[in-house]
Amino acid sequence: MATLKDVARETGLTVSTVSRVLNNRGYISEQTRENVYRAMEKLNYHPNEVARSLSKQTTNTIGVIVPHIKHPYFAELISNLESQAYLHKHKILLFNSQEKNEKEWEYLEMCSSNRVAGIILCSGTVGAEKFTGLNVPLVTIECTLENGTAAVECDNRQGGKLAAKHLIELGCKQLIHISGVHGNAMPADDRAAGFCEVCKQKGVDYKVVDTEADQYNNLEYHEILERLLQENSDTDGIFVSSDLIAAQLLQVCKKLNISVPEKLKIVGFDDVNIASLTTPPITTIHQPIKEMAKMAIELLISAGEGNIVSSRTILPVALVKRETT
Amino acid sequence: MATLKDVARETGLTVSTVSRVLNNRGYISEQTRENVYRAMEKLNYHPNEVARSLSKQTTNTIGVIVPHIKHPYFAELISNLESQAYLHKHKILLFNSQEKNEKEWEYLEMCSSNRVAGIILCSGTVGAEKFTGLNVPLVTIECTLENGTAAVECDNRQGGKLAAKHLIELGCKQLIHISGVHGNAMPADDRAAGFCEVCKQKGVDYKVVDTEADQYNNLEYHEILERLLQENSDTDGIFVSSDLIAAQLLQVCKKLNISVPEKLKIVGFDDVNIASLTTPPITTIHQPIKEMAKMAIELLISAGEGNIVSSRTILPVALVKRETT
Repeated sequence: MATLKDVARETGLTVSTVSRVLNNRGYISEQTRENVYRAMEKLNYHPNEVARSLSKQTTNTIGVIVPHIKHPYFAELISNLESQAYLHKHKILLFNSQEKNEKEWEYLEMCSSNRVAGIILCSGTVGAEKFTGLNVPLVTIECTLENGTAAVECDNRQGGKLAAKHLIELGCKQLIHISGVHGNAMPADDRAAGFCEVCKQKGVDYKVVDTEADQYNNLEYHEILERLLQENSDTDGIFVSSDLIAAQLLQVCKKLNISVPEKLKIVGFDDVNIASLTTPPITTIHQPIKEMAKMAIELLISAGEGNIVSSRTILPVALVKRETT
Repeated sequence: MATLKDVARETGLTVSTVSRVLNNRGYISEQTRENVYRAMEKLNYHPNEVARSLSKQTTNTIGVIVPHIKHPYFAELISNLESQAYLHKHKILLFNSQEKNEKEWEYLEMCSSNRVAGIILCSGTVGAEKFTGLNVPLVTIECTLENGTAAVECDNRQGGKLAAKHLIELGCKQLIHISGVHGNAMPADDRAAGFCEVCKQKGVDYKVVDTEADQYNNLEYHEILERLLQENSDTDGIFVSSDLIAAQLLQVCKKLNISVPEKLKIVGFDDVNIASLTTPPITTIHQPIKEMAKMAIELLISAGEGNIVSSRTILPVALVKRETT
């Protein structure tokens, strides 16, 4: 592979002049610049980012840790994080933790050893104390850590309220909310809180049902949904904490011959592609995923430059009416 | 941040002994090893992978370039690539090309500058000649390059045959295949070829319809599907080249009051999560995505070790019968 020296030899310039061209440092004539680029192309020279990173003691790489890459919410989030990172000339190192504590921990070590510019964490089993020694900026998205890390969230509480209000306005009298994973602190908890608040206020009967960790890890809810509908045959409105669960709920309704939205109304959460791909498409709470990704990348870069950044950023949600209500 | 020297000082060992422990080189007593690890933990020392990469002139990072992260097929593929890379102690640098030639090209440069161990390319607008100078192993998945690169594919032709046979066995007389992007060489072309072969053999009327690049880039097909169904009201079986399009076709059928599978039977391709999340769930051709990811990572690592690897690996597909047929 061609080196900086080869480029210098080819152009008749010194190594330090060639290096100045590459790093855009000091005055360089247009002619010299052009000669260097032409020689680079001819010799097929690629600057060594690894060497550059070593001298800077950091890279322009951002570690992204998610629980499930193929979950439609995280797939959409990763896609937006990549686009936003690209705008800042950064790259994404992607890690799939499957919500396993030891994998998260190992990935954090890998991020640190690879001198990432920062970490975006969307997977929440590691305690805050683990991050203290890592010495890299850390931003969480929709996952709670107990210290002063920068957290980006959508307004989950407001989302729960919007869902409950919508179902009640449509005349529902018996509501159920299918919530986050039992025993884990999750953003879904705030959705449940907002939902309950409105139900109480309006005097409407409601029930909150937790899901189990292995349902979340396998992205598979049919069994619990079928049992729930059979045991609560007078339910006329359900708010679920993801569009993925809402899609499975539609399938169970079909199986049990429950017509949606006539007999049962359904509101999802996230507004990812699955919500508009089902038949009927799902009424849902829109998370501003693009804006959350943009905010997370900006906070991370700003923190990396030594700035003090806001420890909690909450972005607004909205109800998107489709055909399940 | 603690350095190797600090660990040496803390343990009373030389830097070269500590380095031998870290690199697992030569004989080291259990006691010494333990002392070093204890000191590393106490000092919160993280080995500098960047420095290590510089001396090795490569990293244990694999660049993955896909056209659309949030497309359910690529989300599932990326998830499997990450798991397989992890088994080989490699990491994934993820790039979203949006099928834009200049972005692909820029990403290839970034991969090269960052001395990746190899590149997995699933996005095909760049010509083969661009790769000649890069000097890193390259494996493609479901995308064709004209030189001797290692390509991993599923048996697309067989997939097209299975779909046609299945629809014909169920009594369909007027078939349509909705194929890949017009004017691009894509794996979907082989699916079309297999489909046509069986239709001709069995003497069944059929038609192949291409899609447009901007439909693929926006993952949005409703309009063309609605027009197609209106202009071909006697069609009783459709084979589409992705489950994503099949899900949208189900929505259009609902809108036009065409009952599936009674009046129209549908077969998708990919067998990703969307196929089992629609109502009714989609009969589809299963791509062995996990095995394809495993094969791609193994080929890449083997090529990086200087071995000669097979230039084309084709994995088998299967029909998965669900409720759209």
